[in-house]
Amino acid sequence: MTVQGSSILVLGGARSGKSRFAEGLATGSGLDRHYVATGRAYDDEMRERIAKHRADRGEGWTTHEEPVELADLLRRIDGPGRVVLVDCLTLWVTNLMMAEDDVAMRSAELVEAVTGLSSRLVLVSNEVGLGIVPENRMAREFRDHAGRLHQLVAQHAAEVYFIAAGLPLKMKG
Amino acid sequence: MTVQGSSILVLGGARSGKSRFAEGLATGSGLDRHYVATGRAYDDEMRERIAKHRADRGEGWTTHEEPVELADLLRRIDGPGRVVLVDCLTLWVTNLMMAEDDVAMRSAELVEAVTGLSSRLVLVSNEVGLGIVPENRMAREFRDHAGRLHQLVAQHAAEVYFIAAGLPLKMKG
Amino acid sequence: MTVQGSSILVLGGARSGKSRFAEGLATGSGLDRHYVATGRAYDDEMRERIAKHRADRGEGWTTHEEPVELADLLRRIDGPGRVVLVDCLTLWVTNLMMAEDDVAMRSAELVEAVTGLSSRLVLVSNEVGLGIVPENRMAREFRDHAGRLHQLVAQHAAEVYFIAAGLPLKMKG
Repeated sequence: MTVQGSSILVLGGARSGKSRFAEGLATGSGLDRHYVATGRAYDDEMRERIAKHRADRGEGWTTHEEPVELADLLRRIDGPGRVVLVDCLTLWVTNLMMAEDDVAMRSAELVEAVTGLSSRLVLVSNEVGLGIVPENRMAREFRDHAGRLHQLVAQHAAEVYFIAAGLPLKMKG
Repeated sequence: MTVQGSSILVLGGARSGKSRFAEGLATGSGLDRHYVATGRAYDDEMRERIAKHRADRGEGWTTHEEPVELADLLRRIDGPGRVVLVDCLTLWVTNLMMAEDDVAMRSAELVEAVTGLSSRLVLVSNEVGLGIVPENRMAREFRDHAGRLHQLVAQHAAEVYFIAAGLPLKMKG
Repeated sequence: MTVQGSSILVLGGARSGKSRFAEGLATGSGLDRHYVATGRAYDDEMRERIAKHRADRGEGWTTHEEPVELADLLRRIDGPGRVVLVDCLTLWVTNLMMAEDDVAMRSAELVEAVTGLSSRLVLVSNEVGLGIVPENRMAREFRDHAGRLHQLVAQHAAEVYFIAAGLPLKMKG
């Protein structure tokens, strides 16, 4: 397996079943499972969603939480025989924007890290660009950042899936 | 044909041509056609949309209107040699939320009814989870309910289609 | 190649890579390239997006700007050995709505023009119907107009692609 061949992008809408599909890929790999949560529990609704995700996921995962320094974390926990599931890239982009960080630079940094890992990587992200143009400028910028990141990650991914109603459409690989 | 094999989910965006595609499936089946409208004509815009749908559909349908008790209705009008088109599940979820009903329980009830029918069933629904996270909490809950229902229905469906620009992508079956 | 066979619809979300994919189709054709920008630079953000698009596109294009009279322009610049890329239909619909023009009539007019051209045509458009129903009535009408136009154009197109994360899903052709 080439290094570039080791990352998989799982894109989907809200409640599309993308996390469950990604977890299935990770579990099916038979590798040592690591889970990276990028979400920040800044309110009760978010805390509930995170707790529910964790319960749905079940046993057998080493969990890491990293809202910002994703590239660093991926390098730190890297190792052969591991699968690392990142859930999700859009929450990471949100955190970067909240921190007024440079999303384009961070995205390039992430892709550079990803292509150098020996773990198998499964990256989950929300497709958010298929509705009406948001009235809010920040939301428009968020869509742009997310879309650009997805293109970048997809370019380097071995497989890309689009999930709807729990079902995968293979877009690459 | 197995009982479970008799339901088809047709997912798509606004004005994607999903209703027309679903109607084509029903008409093409050659079975006795029943149409279940879940929409409530609570304002003029909605009334116009419903009237337009009815005109587009043409002759040859027995029409039923049921905003809430969908599982009951499906059991009541069930019969071999029939195709039942439900348009659409997202309006039904809206009605349940308006009535402060338990959507998860109703969704489970619907799927239970669906798997026991002898009619062929075509369920139309709006994919609503591919835009920016709505600022409104109720809209977020609606997306969650709709997404979970789609996953549940898709699991039990024999065929699932995603429609865009009037064209079907087969996701299952 | 039949006349009807000459148009291609490229649908996708915001920052999905649809423009770049469409440009690749045009460049790959080896034909004389014409670019039709429908966007109106009515504010700085829009001006930036247009300038960025132009820079991304690179050399070798004859550029036309036409916010409203799209059918006329396509007839005027038509010719064998040419490929015409229109980016994008949703901005054109926006302009028509701003001018309180008749979008349905204009859409029919466009499709009539398209089917009579000898140039190869690549039409880019935004899929905007996969989010929550917008609260704003104008936005709902915009979704309806865009969706109907996509169905109409797709019906007459030789090929239709849905783009996500820079990757094409072929829906027709």
